[in-house]
Amino acid sequence: MAPDETQVLAVNQAFYDAVVTGNIEALDALWVERADVTCIHPGWDALIGRDEVMASFRAIFSGGGAPRIQCVDATARLFGETAIVVCGEVLDGTYLIATNVFVREGAGWRLCHHQAGPVSVRRRTPTPPSDPGMLN
Amino acid sequence: MAPDETQVLAVNQAFYDAVVTGNIEALDALWVERADVTCIHPGWDALIGRDEVMASFRAIFSGGGAPRIQCVDATARLFGETAIVVCGEVLDGTYLIATNVFVREGAGWRLCHHQAGPVSVRRRTPTPPSDPGMLN
Repeated sequence: MAPDETQVLAVNQAFYDAVVTGNIEALDALWVERADVTCIHPGWDALIGRDEVMASFRAIFSGGGAPRIQCVDATARLFGETAIVVCGEVLDGTYLIATNVFVREGAGWRLCHHQAGPVSVRRRTPTPPSDPGMLN
Repeated sequence: MAPDETQVLAVNQAFYDAVVTGNIEALDALWVERADVTCIHPGWDALIGRDEVMASFRAIFSGGGAPRIQCVDATARLFGETAIVVCGEVLDGTYLIATNVFVREGAGWRLCHHQAGPVSVRRRTPTPPSDPGMLN
């Protein structure tokens, strides 16, 4: 995997680590500084700007506590200085699908947009690469 | 509005025009050529690659016909050669929220990612800028 892709997926995972631990400072540090961020929680309308977005996470953390969310099957596609991550989110046994958009800022990658929504029918899990050892 | 932003919003509208008219050729021409495209319809898992994405639109068009979808409140944010559009979608009286990501390709902007999902509670429509004429 290309180094940029690896870095982007690490920052994507850091986003979910911050959410699952309810670490608002770590979460805040992951978003871009140079532009308004946007965030669409499942079922919510769009939130625009860091103040609204961070307030929503504070409300989520103080409401039911930090969500026990797990990021799965994350893939990153790079378009120059921007990266689009598509990943699944497993939350209380339900499966959601998310878009996370990152842009290069300073030495690393920062989140500028997040959308997650419910999935009615999950696709068949891709067949893992064949393992000759399994055939014998 | 900056010219790039205007162009991006025009291509975003062209996407909805192609969907509402069921014009599969116009729709196909809007997506990037240089990379796999990704698409997340409301309630669907992620579709990856032009073949899957275009097949999904063909299935939607041939199923219930072209959806009578209206794009509302589109805003674009530019990050270099990438643009993120967040917009509402009104479909059969329901309100959805969407992310459309465009990248510059050739002379224009092409779609590389789409996600739309349901909104449970629509936010209050922002108050329009005050018009002194209205106060008298």
